Amino acid sequence: MSKFTKKRSKKRGLSPGTLIHIGEQKLENVKISVLDYDENSLLEKEILNVNDCLAFKNKKSVTWLNVDGIHKVEIIKTIGEIFGMHTLVLEDVLNTDQRPKTDIFKDFVFVVLKMIDYNNETNEVETEQLSLVLGENFVLTFQENSKDIFDPLRKRIRTATGKIRKSGSDYLAYAILDAIVDNYFLVLEKLGEKIELTEDELLKNPTPQTLHTIQTLKKEMIFLRKAVYPLREVLVSLERGDSTLFTNTTELYLRDVYDHTIQVIDTVETFREFLSGMLEVYLSSLSNKMNNVMKTLTLMTALFMPLGLVAGIYGMNFKKMPELEWKFGYPFALFLMGLISVSMLAFMKKKKWF
Amino acid sequence: MSKFTKKRSKKRGLSPGTLIHIGEQKLENVKISVLDYDENSLLEKEILNVNDCLAFKNKKSVTWLNVDGIHKVEIIKTIGEIFGMHTLVLEDVLNTDQRPKTDIFKDFVFVVLKMIDYNNETNEVETEQLSLVLGENFVLTFQENSKDIFDPLRKRIRTATGKIRKSGSDYLAYAILDAIVDNYFLVLEKLGEKIELTEDELLKNPTPQTLHTIQTLKKEMIFLRKAVYPLREVLVSLERGDSTLFTNTTELYLRDVYDHTIQVIDTVETFREFLSGMLEVYLSSLSNKMNNVMKTLTLMTALFMPLGLVAGIYGMNFKKMPELEWKFGYPFALFLMGLISVSMLAFMKKKKWF
Amino acid sequence: MSKFTKKRSKKRGLSPGTLIHIGEQKLENVKISVLDYDENSLLEKEILNVNDCLAFKNKKSVTWLNVDGIHKVEIIKTIGEIFGMHTLVLEDVLNTDQRPKTDIFKDFVFVVLKMIDYNNETNEVETEQLSLVLGENFVLTFQENSKDIFDPLRKRIRTATGKIRKSGSDYLAYAILDAIVDNYFLVLEKLGEKIELTEDELLKNPTPQTLHTIQTLKKEMIFLRKAVYPLREVLVSLERGDSTLFTNTTELYLRDVYDHTIQVIDTVETFREFLSGMLEVYLSSLSNKMNNVMKTLTLMTALFMPLGLVAGIYGMNFKKMPELEWKFGYPFALFLMGLISVSMLAFMKKKKWF
Amino acid sequence: MSKFTKKRSKKRGLSPGTLIHIGEQKLENVKISVLDYDENSLLEKEILNVNDCLAFKNKKSVTWLNVDGIHKVEIIKTIGEIFGMHTLVLEDVLNTDQRPKTDIFKDFVFVVLKMIDYNNETNEVETEQLSLVLGENFVLTFQENSKDIFDPLRKRIRTATGKIRKSGSDYLAYAILDAIVDNYFLVLEKLGEKIELTEDELLKNPTPQTLHTIQTLKKEMIFLRKAVYPLREVLVSLERGDSTLFTNTTELYLRDVYDHTIQVIDTVETFREFLSGMLEVYLSSLSNKMNNVMKTLTLMTALFMPLGLVAGIYGMNFKKMPELEWKFGYPFALFLMGLISVSMLAFMKKKKWF
Amino acid sequence: MSKFTKKRSKKRGLSPGTLIHIGEQKLENVKISVLDYDENSLLEKEILNVNDCLAFKNKKSVTWLNVDGIHKVEIIKTIGEIFGMHTLVLEDVLNTDQRPKTDIFKDFVFVVLKMIDYNNETNEVETEQLSLVLGENFVLTFQENSKDIFDPLRKRIRTATGKIRKSGSDYLAYAILDAIVDNYFLVLEKLGEKIELTEDELLKNPTPQTLHTIQTLKKEMIFLRKAVYPLREVLVSLERGDSTLFTNTTELYLRDVYDHTIQVIDTVETFREFLSGMLEVYLSSLSNKMNNVMKTLTLMTALFMPLGLVAGIYGMNFKKMPELEWKFGYPFALFLMGLISVSMLAFMKKKKWF
Repeated sequence: MSKFTKKRSKKRGLSPGTLIHIGEQKLENVKISVLDYDENSLLEKEILNVNDCLAFKNKKSVTWLNVDGIHKVEIIKTIGEIFGMHTLVLEDVLNTDQRPKTDIFKDFVFVVLKMIDYNNETNEVETEQLSLVLGENFVLTFQENSKDIFDPLRKRIRTATGKIRKSGSDYLAYAILDAIVDNYFLVLEKLGEKIELTEDELLKNPTPQTLHTIQTLKKEMIFLRKAVYPLREVLVSLERGDSTLFTNTTELYLRDVYDHTIQVIDTVETFREFLSGMLEVYLSSLSNKMNNVMKTLTLMTALFMPLGLVAGIYGMNFKKMPELEWKFGYPFALFLMGLISVSMLAFMKKKKWF
Repeated sequence: MSKFTKKRSKKRGLSPGTLIHIGEQKLENVKISVLDYDENSLLEKEILNVNDCLAFKNKKSVTWLNVDGIHKVEIIKTIGEIFGMHTLVLEDVLNTDQRPKTDIFKDFVFVVLKMIDYNNETNEVETEQLSLVLGENFVLTFQENSKDIFDPLRKRIRTATGKIRKSGSDYLAYAILDAIVDNYFLVLEKLGEKIELTEDELLKNPTPQTLHTIQTLKKEMIFLRKAVYPLREVLVSLERGDSTLFTNTTELYLRDVYDHTIQVIDTVETFREFLSGMLEVYLSSLSNKMNNVMKTLTLMTALFMPLGLVAGIYGMNFKKMPELEWKFGYPFALFLMGLISVSMLAFMKKKKWF
Repeated sequence: MSKFTKKRSKKRGLSPGTLIHIGEQKLENVKISVLDYDENSLLEKEILNVNDCLAFKNKKSVTWLNVDGIHKVEIIKTIGEIFGMHTLVLEDVLNTDQRPKTDIFKDFVFVVLKMIDYNNETNEVETEQLSLVLGENFVLTFQENSKDIFDPLRKRIRTATGKIRKSGSDYLAYAILDAIVDNYFLVLEKLGEKIELTEDELLKNPTPQTLHTIQTLKKEMIFLRKAVYPLREVLVSLERGDSTLFTNTTELYLRDVYDHTIQVIDTVETFREFLSGMLEVYLSSLSNKMNNVMKTLTLMTALFMPLGLVAGIYGMNFKKMPELEWKFGYPFALFLMGLISVSMLAFMKKKKWF
Repeated sequence: MSKFTKKRSKKRGLSPGTLIHIGEQKLENVKISVLDYDENSLLEKEILNVNDCLAFKNKKSVTWLNVDGIHKVEIIKTIGEIFGMHTLVLEDVLNTDQRPKTDIFKDFVFVVLKMIDYNNETNEVETEQLSLVLGENFVLTFQENSKDIFDPLRKRIRTATGKIRKSGSDYLAYAILDAIVDNYFLVLEKLGEKIELTEDELLKNPTPQTLHTIQTLKKEMIFLRKAVYPLREVLVSLERGDSTLFTNTTELYLRDVYDHTIQVIDTVETFREFLSGMLEVYLSSLSNKMNNVMKTLTLMTALFMPLGLVAGIYGMNFKKMPELEWKFGYPFALFLMGLISVSMLAFMKKKKWF
Repeated sequence: MSKFTKKRSKKRGLSPGTLIHIGEQKLENVKISVLDYDENSLLEKEILNVNDCLAFKNKKSVTWLNVDGIHKVEIIKTIGEIFGMHTLVLEDVLNTDQRPKTDIFKDFVFVVLKMIDYNNETNEVETEQLSLVLGENFVLTFQENSKDIFDPLRKRIRTATGKIRKSGSDYLAYAILDAIVDNYFLVLEKLGEKIELTEDELLKNPTPQTLHTIQTLKKEMIFLRKAVYPLREVLVSLERGDSTLFTNTTELYLRDVYDHTIQVIDTVETFREFLSGMLEVYLSSLSNKMNNVMKTLTLMTALFMPLGLVAGIYGMNFKKMPELEWKFGYPFALFLMGLISVSMLAFMKKKKWF
C-alpha cells in the first residue's frame, strides 16, 4: 500500500513550484547520457557536468538526453532551466507519485508514464515513473532507475535500422512510448503464466495459499490498471494532434501505440474477470470439501451409533435378559450389528451419499 | 490463458514496421486463391507464385484474393508491396493478437476481425484472425487457417446468385463481413445448447463437474466478448461513411450487419447473466445439501444418544438398582427406549425437520 | 434458452435479401385483414387473395392492413412488392429473432417490436414479434399469431371514439405502439403479483422451490429487458422527428408512449433489484436454518455426553469402587446426572443458545 | 409491490386522452382552495363550485389553486378546460403512477413530482403524486391527499415574509418545489436514524429480524430512488431556461433546489451502500456464530469421547484384566480420565480454539 | 450516520434566503482575522468588530479575510452585506451540509469544499466545510473550526516565499485550494497505513474485530468519496475559465490541483477495491477455519467411535463369549483397538485430511 501513500507528506504546505524529490532513491548517482543523431552522424556520450547540456539545446540534429536517477533536485533544476521548462513540469518530474498524463505547452510536450516490471522474486509488479519532454529538436527522458528497456531502441539508432535516423524528435518520442507499451505485454505474459499456474493448482489442489496467490494477483491488477488506464487519454490527446510537434506521419504511428494500449487495458480487464472467476471456484471448492467432510461425519455417526446401542443394550445388567442366556446370544448380537451396518450402508448408497 | 499473452514477446524492441509473424502456425503451406469476377465473367484459380498477384492489381473486375496461412512473412510482404499497403498494416496482418479494428486510408480500408468456431472436442471457442483489405477493385483476405466459412459465398459468386456479381468490391467486403457475423450465431447456438444442458444437469443432479462446466462457459463468454465487442465500433465506422469506398447502397447493408452484431452482443450478455444465475443456483444447492446432511446427523444423534444413555444407566454396576431385579426390567428398558424414540421423532416432525 | 439461439442457422450462407421465415409457425393459415377508414367512411374486410391489397395502396383514406402469421414467404413477398418495401425490410419481417429497432426510409418507416404475454400455465413470459410499416396512407402490421391485443383499438375505429378517425396513418401507428406498450403494464402486473406471492412464501416458509421461482423470475426479467430496452431508442428516434411521416401533434403523443416505455424499463429494473434482494434473503435463511440445526446438535451432544460418561464410569468393573456399594449409590448417580443436565442447560441459557 | 403495478390495467385499450383516475382514492371529498395575492392584497378561500375557478384565470395577481383529491374526473376536467390544458396533461394528472417529469408547453409548464412521507407505524416510505401547472399568473397543484407540507409556505404568503409576495407565479412554483425537496430531507433523516438503530442492533445482537429490517430498508431505498432520480432531469430542464415562464432570478433559485436534489440523491446512494455493508456484516456474523457453535461441539466431543472410551474399556468383562484387581484401580482410571482432559484442553488452548 | 441527516430539519418550511446555521457549533467564539498584502507591504490583524471589514472592501492590495466559526448568523450576514454577496450564498455558507460546488457570479466566485482530517482517537475521518469567496481584490474563507492547515500558507505570505506576494487574489484562492487538496494526501496516507496494518492482521490472525475494522474503513471511504468526487467538477469549472477572475497563469496552477484531485479520487477507489478484496479474504478465512474445525471433529469421531464399539462389545453380558475367557483376551482387545486406530489414521492420511 505504501507505494501509493507514503510519499507526498513532506511536500505539504510548501509553495507550489518548490522542487522536492518525492519517492525512493533508487540509484546512487545520477547518470546523464546523450544520444545525438541525424541521418548521417551520431554522437553518444555521458555528461558529467550538467551544464554541458546547453550545447545540445539548439542543435539541429535530434538530441535524446536521458537522465537516470532524479533524486538530485539541483541537476533536474539546471536541465529544466537550460531547456526552458515550467516549474510545475519540473515539480512533476521530481514527484514519482504522478498519474500518467500529458501537458501540452506551446514549445514542448510533457508526458508522464509508468514503466512496469515484474519482479520474479517478490512476485510483484513494480512501477517506475518516466517523464518525457519533447521539444523541437530534443527529447528529454527522466527515469528513477537504470533500466535496459531502451537498449534495443538505442541499438536501432546506432545501427541506423528502420526509419528512426531519418525522422525527427517526434518519431523518437513515439519510439520511446512504443518501447514502454511493448514492455507492458511482457509483464502481462508473465502474469498470464502465473494465472495459468494458479488455475491448475486451483483445479488440482486448492489450498489457502492458492487463495492468497489469487488475491495478490488481483491486487497487482489494481496497480496495473491504475498505471495503464490514464495512458489511453494521454495517447488520444497526442494522436489527435493537440500539439503541432507531432507530424501527421508520426500521428499514424501513435495510433498504433494507442491500439496496443487498448489491447493492454483489455487484457488487464480479462485477467481481472478470470481472477474473480477463480475466487468463486476457490470458495465453492471450500464448500464442496466441507460437504464431503460433513457427509463422512454423518456416515460414521449413522453407522456406529446404532451398533453402539446394541452393545449397550446387551451390556445392561438386568437379571432377566433371555438373550444373554442363549447359546448363540453373542453371535446373534454380532449378526444383528452386521445387519444394521449393511442396511445403513444400503440406505445411504440409495441416497447417493457416497 | 496463453492465447492472450504468449505471443508478442519476440517482437519486443524491434523497429516498428519490422514484419514478424506472431501466433501459431496453423497450416503447413500458404495457399493463395483468386476469384475474379464481374457481371459476365468469372475467373477462379490458385496462385502458386506470389508475383502473379500483380496481374489483378488494376483489373477492372472485382478481385477477391484470399490467403490461407500467414506465417510466411515474405509472401505477405510481397502482396503488401504489390497492392501498396502501409507497413503498419502488414504488421497488423501478421500479428494475430489484434483487437478487432478498422483503419481507413485514402485508397483502401483495412479491417481486422475475429472468426470464431466452437470445437466440439475440447468444448472451447476457438478464435482466428481475419484481415481484410478493401481497395477500389479488389478485396484481400488473410486467414490463419483454411476454413469453409466462405464456401457458400463463393458458391453464390460462381452461380451468380443474388446481387453479388452485379456489385462492386465494397459489396464483396460486406458479404464477407456478413458471413463472419452470421457464423457467430452458429457458435452462439451451440453454446446455447450447452448452457441448456448444463441447466438441466444443475436442476437434476449438480456435481462439482457442473460447476466446472459453468465456469468454463463463463470463460468462453469472456473470450467471445473480447472478440465481438470491438466489432460494433468497426461497423459504426464503416456504416457512417468514413470511407468513400463504400457506396450508399452497401452502407444500408452494413447497417444490417451492424444490427446483427448488436444482436450477437446482446446474446453474449444474456448468456453471461444466465451463467451468473446458474452459479448462484449451484452454490445454493450446495448449501441445501449441507443443510440436509446436517439435519440427518442431528436426527441420528438426537435419536440414539438418549437411547444409549438408558442402556448406559442400566449397565451401571451399583449393588442396589431396583429395576435390575424387576421381572420385566428388561422389557421396561426396551419400552422406555421405544418411548423416547417416538417422542423425539414426534418432536422433530413438529419442528418440520423431515 | 432455445428461443434465442435456435433460429438463425438455416439462414447461414444465403445471399442477403433471400427471404426465409425464421421462427416457429404459430398459426395454421395466414390471415390478412383490412380496416380502411376516414372521418366519414369505414371499410372492414378479410383479404383472401393477397393481390387484392393493391387496391389499398394509393387510397386516400387510412388503410390498416394486418397480417396474422408470417410463415408463408410468398405472401409477405407479394405484399412487400405491392407497397414497395426494400428486400432487407422483408427479410426482417420474416426473421422473428430481431432486436426492436426502427429503420427510417424516405417513403416509409419500419418498426420492429416485441409484444409480450404472460402464460399462466407455464409461468413464462412469451414474446412475439410485430413488424409495422407506416406509409403515407397506410399502416401494415405483421404478427406471428392472432392476438386480441388490438381489439379495443379496432373497436375505437369502428365506433369513431376519440381522435382516431379524424387523424392520419401516423396517428394509427402511434395508437398501435401505445396498445403494445400498455400491454406491457399488464404483464408487469402479473409478474408483480407473482413476485409478491414469492416474497410471502420466502418470509414464511422458504423451500428450494422458492429459490427456483426466484431464479425463473430473474430469467424472465432478462428476457423482458432484452425486449423492452431497445424500444427506448426506437421511440426517441420517432419522437425526435427523424421521419416526416409523423406530424407534430402525433410526436406529442409519441412522447407519451416514450414516457410509458421509460416507466416500463424502470419497473423491470425495480423488479430485478427486488429479486436480487430476495435471493439474498433466501441464502441467509439457509444459513440461519443451518445455524439452528447446528445449535440443536451441539446442545444434544453437550447434554448427553457428560451423562453418558457418568453412566460409563459406574459401569466399570473395578473390584473396589466404593460408590457401587453405597446404599444410595444409584440414586446418587441419577442425581449427579440431573445436576449435570441442569448446569449445562443453565450455562447454555446464559450463552443465549436457545 | 402492488403500488407499482396494480394500477394501470383498467386503462388498457382506451383511447389516449380518455380521462380515468388511476390510483387509490385517498380522500372522501375533493377540496379546492385558492390563494390569490400580490404585493398588497391577499385573498384566500375554498371553492365549492368548480366553475368559480374561471374568475382567477386572467387575474393579474398570482393565483395558487390547490386541489386535494383527484379521484373526481369531472372536476379535473373542468379545471383543465378553464385553464386550457392539453388532454394528455389531464390524463397524467389523473394517473398517479407517473414517473417524475416535466413537459414544457408554450403557455404553461407541467411538472409531475413525488412527495414522500415516512409512515412511523408501517415503517414504510409512502409516496404521493403532486402535479403542478405553472401559467403566466397562476399555479395549479393537484394532490392525492391533504398534506400539511405546504402550511409553512402558506403562512409565509399570508404574513408576507420573504420575497414571495413581491414575486410572480414562477417564484411560487419554485417555492412549492423547494418545500417538497426540503421534505425529502426529513424522510431521509428518519431513515438515517432507523439505519443507525439497525446498525447498533447488528453489532450488539444480530437476529433474523435485523436482516429483515435491513432488507426492508433496502427496498425502501429502491422506491425512494425511483421517486427522486428523475427529479434531477426535471430541475435541469427548468433551470436551463427551457421555458420562458421562469425569470432569470428564479432560475438562480431553481439551481439551489437542483443542488438539494443532488444532495438527496447522494444521500440515498450513501444509504444504499451502508445497507449493503450491513448485509455483509450480518452474513459474516452468521458465519462467525456457526464457527463458534462448531468449535463448542468439537470441543465437547474431543473432551468426552476419550473419557468415554476409558470408561468403556474398564467396563469390559474380560476374565483377566489386571487393573480391575488393583487396589487403586478405580482412582487410577479417574486419574487417567483427568489426565486426558487436561491434555486435551492444553492442546486446544495451544491451537487457540478458545 | 447522523452527520448526514440530522441537520436540515430545523430549516424546513422557512423562506429561502432565511439565514440559519445548520451544523454543530465547534468553536466558542467567532474569530475573524485579516491578512492584507501586496508585493511590498503586509498587514495582519484580528478583527474584533465585524464592521471593520468594510475598510478592506475596495483596497487595492490582496485581502484574505478568514472567519473561524460560522454559528453566529449576524456576523456572517454583516460580512455578506459588506462584500455584496447574494443571500443564497450566505445560506450555503451557514449550512454545513453542502455538497462541494462552485457558483460563478459576475463579480465573485463562490466555492464550497470539504476539509478532511483523520481523528487518531476515534479512527474516523472528520469533515469540515470551507466556503471560499473570491472577489477582485479579496478572498473570504469561512471555516467551522480553527485548523492549522493554512499555517504554512500564511508563513509563505509573511516571508514572501514563492510567487504569492507578487500575485493577485486569484492566486491566493488557488493556494488555499492547493493546501486543502494536499491535506487530503495526508489523510489518505494515514488510512493507507491503517489498511496495511489491517491487512497484516488479516493474514496472521483474523478476528471479528478485523472485520469490524474493514467495515469501518469501507464506511470512511464512502464518506471520503462523497467529499472528494464533486471536487473534480468544481475544479473543471474553475480551470476551464468560466470566471474571468482567474488569470490564465492561475488556470495553469488550477490544472495542477485538478491533477491532484484525480489522484486523490484514484487512490480512494483503489482503497475501496483493496477493502473489498480484504472482506473476501476474511470471509474465506472463516470458511477455512470452519473446514478445519469440522475436519477435527470428524477425525475425533472416526477415531473414537469404532474403539468405543469394541469396548462396548466386550462389555456385553452374554453368558457365552469365548474371547472373555481367553487368557490374552484383554490384550487382544487393546491390540484390536490400536489396529483400528492406526488403520483409520492411515486412511485419513491417504485422503489428505491432515
